[in-house]
Amino acid sequence: MKEQEATKERFAVTGRNRLKRRHDRGRYDHEAVYAVLDAGLLCHVAYVIDGQPYCTPTIHWRAGDWLYWHGSSASRMLRNLKGGTPVCLTVSHLDGLVLARSGFNHSANYRSAICFGTARMIDDPDEKAKALLGVVDRFFPGRAAELRQTHAQESKATTVIGMRIEEASAKVRAAGVGDDEEDYGHPVWAGVFPVQTVIGASEACPRLLPGMAKGAGLAGYLAGRRLDEALLEAQHLYEGEEEVAELAD
Amino acid sequence: MKEQEATKERFAVTGRNRLKRRHDRGRYDHEAVYAVLDAGLLCHVAYVIDGQPYCTPTIHWRAGDWLYWHGSSASRMLRNLKGGTPVCLTVSHLDGLVLARSGFNHSANYRSAICFGTARMIDDPDEKAKALLGVVDRFFPGRAAELRQTHAQESKATTVIGMRIEEASAKVRAAGVGDDEEDYGHPVWAGVFPVQTVIGASEACPRLLPGMAKGAGLAGYLAGRRLDEALLEAQHLYEGEEEVAELAD
Repeated sequence: MKEQEATKERFAVTGRNRLKRRHDRGRYDHEAVYAVLDAGLLCHVAYVIDGQPYCTPTIHWRAGDWLYWHGSSASRMLRNLKGGTPVCLTVSHLDGLVLARSGFNHSANYRSAICFGTARMIDDPDEKAKALLGVVDRFFPGRAAELRQTHAQESKATTVIGMRIEEASAKVRAAGVGDDEEDYGHPVWAGVFPVQTVIGASEACPRLLPGMAKGAGLAGYLAGRRLDEALLEAQHLYEGEEEVAELAD
Repeated sequence: MKEQEATKERFAVTGRNRLKRRHDRGRYDHEAVYAVLDAGLLCHVAYVIDGQPYCTPTIHWRAGDWLYWHGSSASRMLRNLKGGTPVCLTVSHLDGLVLARSGFNHSANYRSAICFGTARMIDDPDEKAKALLGVVDRFFPGRAAELRQTHAQESKATTVIGMRIEEASAKVRAAGVGDDEEDYGHPVWAGVFPVQTVIGASEACPRLLPGMAKGAGLAGYLAGRRLDEALLEAQHLYEGEEEVAELAD
């Protein structure tokens, strides 16, 4: 893949996001990148302070080509991001351990998305309020309206960071063992241990009021279900509701 | 927690690794940090090239207070790390989604370890060979000896990166809903959706030789078992074997 301009469906390919190896596993289209981002709740954000890299795990959410994350205004990362700073936000899913007949061909099945952009504080009150609804409704569609309303001091104490995705790539391995042809006769077990992240039985708060059922937005979080599927479904519901709200405006 | 010198059991606490918020969730002792690192296979490494942060997912393994990861010698990250460069390596486990009665008190249960150090190429042939055995045996104790031997050109094509952990912190949330006292009467469902990463039924390579059973080092990877438990157990087996080998030297 050579360097390319962005199109409506694809991120630009530059020296920053172009895969340097295993081009066959890489994609640059929005669809592929969003599929990885939206299947996850946990991301890792890399940023630099005085030449020192930091890699911070946090929760991310997406609206269009913007990514958001948040934290206490006191947190180091966010304090230092106020002016707008380059970051790299990565979401990864481990899907399997691949045991080959040589050490060299051992591998993992995975999906990852690496996104580059300039992180900015979301300061505008309306934009911030919308983003703070998003962090709930993106995961649990419709839930924000059911909650105790956000206090002004809570909003003030929360820093919301947003970043338009300038460049991104997705990388996926979803395959069996790939041994060298001459190694298939080597006498050792080879295969894949698939791995998935699943939702367990929900644990209601012991102080739940009587008769409190789960809202419709929680229906996807069924015990035994894959978390990535539930998160993808929630994102689609959230985007549908966003569209309806825009049409109604 | 104030800044502190390292001890035999604890990493130093400095401006770099000291938790800036939620001190109650943080620990700096080796035991807590290693428990998070060893329960994971996937890490995220943050590094800087020309002021641009990168956040790369990769597989890590640990021996004592050293962390290792690897890749093709062609990969961008490793090419740029040859001189020894500051990195931050983070391992995170998502353990649950915590749904409170206000947006502000929504949270996640998680375990994370953030490690700082200077990444160096492992160039010494003996050290490199040992590390390359480690990446197999740490996950699948005893398996390296069962595999087709590593070719010289494979070893040459693989860059091994090592980093002594200079500073680290672990952060854990493992709790139920923490609502504000006055919110417990708010009429909405609240609770935790636990999440775990589990191993599926193994998928044998279709070209497996007849009669190839899984070696003893794979016995822990049982279908339905938590991956973090299997990985922790494998690390303990690996460390036990290392100790025996050292005693025999």
